[in-house]
Amino acid sequence: MPAFILHEYAASGNCYKIRLTAAHLGIALDRREYDIMAGATRTPAFLEGVNANGRIPVLQSGDDYLPESNAACVFLADGSPLIPRDRFDRADMLRWMFWEQYHHEPNIATVRFWKGWVGLDRLDDLQRALLPVKQAAGEAALALMDEHLDRRDWFVADALSLADIVLYAYTHVAEEGGFALEPYPNIRAWLARVAALPGHVPITA
Amino acid sequence: MPAFILHEYAASGNCYKIRLTAAHLGIALDRREYDIMAGATRTPAFLEGVNANGRIPVLQSGDDYLPESNAACVFLADGSPLIPRDRFDRADMLRWMFWEQYHHEPNIATVRFWKGWVGLDRLDDLQRALLPVKQAAGEAALALMDEHLDRRDWFVADALSLADIVLYAYTHVAEEGGFALEPYPNIRAWLARVAALPGHVPITA
Repeated sequence: MPAFILHEYAASGNCYKIRLTAAHLGIALDRREYDIMAGATRTPAFLEGVNANGRIPVLQSGDDYLPESNAACVFLADGSPLIPRDRFDRADMLRWMFWEQYHHEPNIATVRFWKGWVGLDRLDDLQRALLPVKQAAGEAALALMDEHLDRRDWFVADALSLADIVLYAYTHVAEEGGFALEPYPNIRAWLARVAALPGHVPITA
Repeated sequence: MPAFILHEYAASGNCYKIRLTAAHLGIALDRREYDIMAGATRTPAFLEGVNANGRIPVLQSGDDYLPESNAACVFLADGSPLIPRDRFDRADMLRWMFWEQYHHEPNIATVRFWKGWVGLDRLDDLQRALLPVKQAAGEAALALMDEHLDRRDWFVADALSLADIVLYAYTHVAEEGGFALEPYPNIRAWLARVAALPGHVPITA
């Protein structure tokens, strides 16, 4: 397998989930950092050469560029134990990955970004109006995860899969967005379970 | 393979994409309609028995329930020619499917729903403030698709895949949300290409 290049912003959970997948698989990544706060992913060179959608992460394999964090995780993990062999379980893993990008990340990651990077006093009127909506939707996402984990140790089947990895990325830093994890004991136990696995790396690594 | 039950709201593009996938594969679906405008997917019976997330579509296979439209498409198409055999192409297909749920559906489908189902005069203040933002983001999504299709007939590799099917679902009805397709000749040619395929079914079927 050739060396992979990860075009990223390290503090992004979407970038971290690719690094965490690679760590579990023992795959080395050549990391290239972009200052998203300074518009480094909206330059003509980035739009033409890396991702026309102007966003990180992008996983590069030779001359092939793969945007969308969860697709990059699947690419790296293809054929590995991080993807269930059973047909339904494999689709159920993707179900949680699509759910993460639709119901979890746009709420929990966005509020974390607004609070920790943009700054609450710098939000525009629309962002200010959206804040309580995204806070409530983020709480609903956490509640659904906690309920799901009441009956199992891992999101799909009975082992770690990419569903756990991609949900771990922004859930374990949800408190940076003001989302308390104290009311969710199943989530807290699951976060500890993920972090204790051999091969685990923190978001700051 | 056992019979599948599709819990759906037929006019939803997210439900249609599962029917279109099944049609190409020759798979029969037992369809169950829910009146989402009357809250039929938020009843205790639905939340407990079908999807704790309170949303359609859900694909049922025996006692297993699979929410998230794009995951259901992958489940049905697993092992078929609708999923590329090449490892990168397979991940690139998922890239477009994740992109569809993050950048396309929340804009184009939501504006279509607000205009055609809720009614512009019934939008609340936040929806009214979001409308121009979602219109602009929907236009950006269409522009990116049109540029991508300038160099190819299909979204991934050189054949129809689930990427085309899931993007077709809301793109071909984008004008119902007020998104003109006239400025996007590559999209229009691609829509005609998809609709001309053997096995194609319309959203009204």
